[in-house]
Amino acid sequence: MERPTVLTGIKPTGHPHLGNYIGAIKPALEMAEDNRSQGIYFIADYHALNSVQDRQEFKEYTYEIAAAWLALGLDPDKVIFYRQSDVPEILELHWILSCMTPKGLMNRAHAYKAKVEENNLEGNDQDSGVNMGLFTYPILMASDILLFNSDQVPVGKDQVQHVEIARDIAENFNRTFGEVLKLPQYVIEEETAVIPGLDGRKMSKSYGNTIPLFTEEKALKKLINKIVTDSTPPEEPKEVKGSSLFTLYKEFAAEDEIESMREKYRKGIGWGQVKKEVFEVINRELREPRRKYYEYLEDTKALDEVLKRGAQEARSIAAVQLRKVKEMIGC
Amino acid sequence: MERPTVLTGIKPTGHPHLGNYIGAIKPALEMAEDNRSQGIYFIADYHALNSVQDRQEFKEYTYEIAAAWLALGLDPDKVIFYRQSDVPEILELHWILSCMTPKGLMNRAHAYKAKVEENNLEGNDQDSGVNMGLFTYPILMASDILLFNSDQVPVGKDQVQHVEIARDIAENFNRTFGEVLKLPQYVIEEETAVIPGLDGRKMSKSYGNTIPLFTEEKALKKLINKIVTDSTPPEEPKEVKGSSLFTLYKEFAAEDEIESMREKYRKGIGWGQVKKEVFEVINRELREPRRKYYEYLEDTKALDEVLKRGAQEARSIAAVQLRKVKEMIGC
Repeated sequence: MERPTVLTGIKPTGHPHLGNYIGAIKPALEMAEDNRSQGIYFIADYHALNSVQDRQEFKEYTYEIAAAWLALGLDPDKVIFYRQSDVPEILELHWILSCMTPKGLMNRAHAYKAKVEENNLEGNDQDSGVNMGLFTYPILMASDILLFNSDQVPVGKDQVQHVEIARDIAENFNRTFGEVLKLPQYVIEEETAVIPGLDGRKMSKSYGNTIPLFTEEKALKKLINKIVTDSTPPEEPKEVKGSSLFTLYKEFAAEDEIESMREKYRKGIGWGQVKKEVFEVINRELREPRRKYYEYLEDTKALDEVLKRGAQEARSIAAVQLRKVKEMIGC
Repeated sequence: MERPTVLTGIKPTGHPHLGNYIGAIKPALEMAEDNRSQGIYFIADYHALNSVQDRQEFKEYTYEIAAAWLALGLDPDKVIFYRQSDVPEILELHWILSCMTPKGLMNRAHAYKAKVEENNLEGNDQDSGVNMGLFTYPILMASDILLFNSDQVPVGKDQVQHVEIARDIAENFNRTFGEVLKLPQYVIEEETAVIPGLDGRKMSKSYGNTIPLFTEEKALKKLINKIVTDSTPPEEPKEVKGSSLFTLYKEFAAEDEIESMREKYRKGIGWGQVKKEVFEVINRELREPRRKYYEYLEDTKALDEVLKRGAQEARSIAAVQLRKVKEMIGC
């Protein structure tokens, strides 16, 4: 039996930070190690164009995301890894699927509805600030998925609706023209712990509280020292639950290190000491990826090469599928 | 100075009839003869996909339209003539432009608004029967226009808004990323006389009163004999104004023939005789194109060849323009 195809899109809308790594990159990389499925990973730059409308940022984010995934161990010989804008078949299928998508389906999409609600609350026109890229991007996502006969799409809970929309569109197409498009399944990703940022809230670009994933050693140390703590004196016992520092530590340390840190919390340890140890494990785990990351960013030509090679592989699948679809509609 | 580019799209949504020929094909062919501009003519099959969702019809309409234009004298060595779905660059630019299009602009597009009004009148959900291809097709039309640096787009009055939308989108892009897209001008086509159908109303597929453009001689004669007339006796003088038969005659006859027909109307002529003469001029003018038309339809491979060659020319222009656009956004 053929291996199932598992498709993962990565939107390059900012510099990668520790929260991205723990919440999205690490679990996806673990999945890529799983040889029982054919992994397809793509940088969804055309999705990002909705919000990133600055030439320099657009370029940077794409290269940084590509460099980050490769540096952290994504193996382009094991998975198909490409940039969305290198695969024109996706955009052609997108139009075909648009003709198969009732407008009502888009009116009900969460991201659009959230924006409308926001506009209503602020007394704006309901479509204020909505561009057609935002309104129609579930169709682009359907195209991403359906063009590669994806079996499974790992998503967060907020993205389940998009996979359902892709299924609806595929069913419309199949009903009208005949069975060509495979209906994908969503796989809800396990909830990872909320990764705290410098101020203790969820680490997020929009809060400005992030720790860049590949910041240099000294800067990393400084940032970790900035993480807010309470004023419990060193000798007093501390709770690991709710401790930002412990949450971070746990993601990078080995089992026995984690156990020993729990013990230290119980017995009492100074925050300064915890910060030092958090820095050490993070730095230890990220030192080598960091070196590779900057090596890739120094040599964007090599990155382009990797992505172009991936695009060729992707296009050889996409072209066959698009050809089938076009034949069914009568092209 | 370079010749201006003039772009004309032809939507294959039905079998070509006499009304199409007189109202759209004939004037466009006359323009193609004009060597002062670079003509670009394309079969907008991806536009038709909104409404033509039947494999066989989709194929037939496209071939029939291509065969009709070629049979009537469109010279693919003088103009660029292609099928939209053979030029994937159009669909890629379409997505990029979507991200530059405020949703409000689409909410206000005439075709969509008309559909909403119809739904409101009938007490339906306002988006009932609206698919995303219908909702977003002004963006696809913008892409058709902007990808080829079109200077002029000849349109009927009802299409002026679409060229204005293309200008708006181009201005948004240029403001955001830099001047790359040329702002097109619309050229309002002269109003041609309303071509009457068999029942005297405007000839239109939706009224079921059309005369197929290339119907065989006998069938043509029969259809013309069916055109409704009043019961004025043969010897009585007749008005040319408002006479369906005279309107048709005028479009195919020579100047002196038209004059002499006017004279006959004044003096009195039987409707049967008028019909005979109408049939004769139409048949005379369409005999040779009809022969070629069926020759092309017999040999769809030859048609494919012509269209593929046109697509190659089109893509060599489109690829350069798309490359520029992608560089500006940071791809």
